[in-house]
Amino acid sequence: MKHEARLRRLRTSLPESNLDFLLVTHLPNVRYLTGFTGSAGALLVGERDAILFTDGRYRTQARQEVRNARIAIASQAPSLAAAEWLAGLRSRSAPRTLGIEAESLTARARDRLAAALRGKAKLRSAPPLIERARMVKDAAEVGLIRKAVKLGASLFDVACKTIRPGVREVEVAAAMEYEARRKGAEGMSFPTIVAAGARSAIIHGRASPARLPRRGFVVCDFGVILAGYCSDRTRTVHVGKPSQQARDFYGAVLEAQLAAIAAVRPGVTTGQVDEAARSVLRKWKLGRWFTHSTGHGVGLEIHEAPRLAAAQTQKLEPGMVVTIEPGAYVPGKWGVRIEDVVVVTPSGCEVLSPEDKDLVVL
Amino acid sequence: MKHEARLRRLRTSLPESNLDFLLVTHLPNVRYLTGFTGSAGALLVGERDAILFTDGRYRTQARQEVRNARIAIASQAPSLAAAEWLAGLRSRSAPRTLGIEAESLTARARDRLAAALRGKAKLRSAPPLIERARMVKDAAEVGLIRKAVKLGASLFDVACKTIRPGVREVEVAAAMEYEARRKGAEGMSFPTIVAAGARSAIIHGRASPARLPRRGFVVCDFGVILAGYCSDRTRTVHVGKPSQQARDFYGAVLEAQLAAIAAVRPGVTTGQVDEAARSVLRKWKLGRWFTHSTGHGVGLEIHEAPRLAAAQTQKLEPGMVVTIEPGAYVPGKWGVRIEDVVVVTPSGCEVLSPEDKDLVVL
Repeated sequence: MKHEARLRRLRTSLPESNLDFLLVTHLPNVRYLTGFTGSAGALLVGERDAILFTDGRYRTQARQEVRNARIAIASQAPSLAAAEWLAGLRSRSAPRTLGIEAESLTARARDRLAAALRGKAKLRSAPPLIERARMVKDAAEVGLIRKAVKLGASLFDVACKTIRPGVREVEVAAAMEYEARRKGAEGMSFPTIVAAGARSAIIHGRASPARLPRRGFVVCDFGVILAGYCSDRTRTVHVGKPSQQARDFYGAVLEAQLAAIAAVRPGVTTGQVDEAARSVLRKWKLGRWFTHSTGHGVGLEIHEAPRLAAAQTQKLEPGMVVTIEPGAYVPGKWGVRIEDVVVVTPSGCEVLSPEDKDLVVL
Repeated sequence: MKHEARLRRLRTSLPESNLDFLLVTHLPNVRYLTGFTGSAGALLVGERDAILFTDGRYRTQARQEVRNARIAIASQAPSLAAAEWLAGLRSRSAPRTLGIEAESLTARARDRLAAALRGKAKLRSAPPLIERARMVKDAAEVGLIRKAVKLGASLFDVACKTIRPGVREVEVAAAMEYEARRKGAEGMSFPTIVAAGARSAIIHGRASPARLPRRGFVVCDFGVILAGYCSDRTRTVHVGKPSQQARDFYGAVLEAQLAAIAAVRPGVTTGQVDEAARSVLRKWKLGRWFTHSTGHGVGLEIHEAPRLAAAQTQKLEPGMVVTIEPGAYVPGKWGVRIEDVVVVTPSGCEVLSPEDKDLVVL
């Protein structure tokens, strides 16, 4: 069972980090370790023991979903219940060290936690042990991401059928989201981006009521959540006959994307992949218009480690799943972005749901 | 200008809370005070000054949206940039006191903030000054909520057209969400709940792939975001001919909802409103099945102050906007919830987008 293996690996890594316990409060991490999908839960992991604290609403669900941790139903916040359980342990020697996930716990929650421990344990910000483990996906996860990306990819067909001059951006997004729901997606992994004409230069151009122009680029950036895992994909199409300049602009971004994909293999740093895309755009004198990073990990969260950005030193490993999404954006004029999700393989990478990426003219 | 008045009121309340500055990091609060809608920003408010720290992606947008604060473009996290600005002030006397929003800042962010201040200011968890102010909506906000609720209410017509035995819950949700998008909603204010048959007893029964039964209740709980403001509404319909017991069960919940609405007026506590609903359900021997609170504030966030729950002592004031949503849920059998958004008026309350709430049979 995957959850058992994940939890075991975490347990054995606690002593290296000088932690007696780790309180896992970031819900995607709780799900990763136990399968629990509720919205209230804190997992206390010790070297020998794991207890999931949740509340009465999730009594039945927790028992159904979780096999590798004891379940405790709390009447207060789950993390406080965990702290009180720790404070109630018979103390033998020195106070224990409790690691917390300081990136997800609020400052207020840490204060309350510290008070509830009544000096019986010391709080320490833990290193991102679970985030690091989650970077490398196991076979089951790759399978789920593959399905999510396949469903997500099919939304582009809907977009192509909907896109025409005069249609509102939100109508395109609505048609895509309807299809996602119909096909069983739990939801979208982020607000759908449909950005047309001059709006295509806005990197996070959420679908707006603006109407598509007679002529221009339309950036569509979209993803679904399926069985907890996220997809992420961007396609840029052109409405009306593109100018040669538009074709060249698109071609440069596509060349950059293909160069970055070609650079992906174990041992290469995420910074080198970013540079592979960036250098192509520089060659075409478009470097200054590529104003974001080349990609990010994707899995239970839409943005997770590693980051594919300039100067990043994280090395790629087989099983990492990342987006490759260079773009170029000339403010007030136009923008193009092309994005795929790839899995790092022993010899390079596999593009999920690959397809021809020549410029689609609608 | 509303933002100016809101910010001025906050400024004058800082000395009472013994704060020299407040660092506003909760984005709905930043939006409330300045109109800024970006996803990265921290507003530093002093008695004389307000500076919005954001990053380069939002340079143009911040200048368009914000009139009542200086704008500073940061190359690091906005809250860190604010701390460094503070640390760079010429110190005259004692270190200044900087209030933080400990409910929204992560523990890690507070640590970084403290380090960046280099002893030039003391950090203190601030009271919820902005959340308290936001409880009472001004006329502009009530107008926006009114529009959001009106759009939201129209989705129920779509649900009624879609609901029939054999249709999947997610298809009903998809049709509603498509309509919301088509009508200009920025998104849904929470995952749409469509819960049929025995699933209607699950309080947070997100639309699932389950098919609607031939006979039974269908709880639909849904809301949209329009111009930043949220709507929230629940209707429960019955597929097939309801038994007398089902009619009585529905009638009891409706009586409880109407009793709670009738109890809303200035000076009454939110606990009293909760009790008005609860006592009706107790009278019908359904008290034990009403396992959540009666309502919550709604505005820029779907859940905000005040809470309408047992023993709450917050008094209602004109301009507060809250949901009234009692329900009863018999596990494994059925559930009913009925919800409206109301605005507290000087003499009672106004139900937004009111309509007949007799049991709809489809």
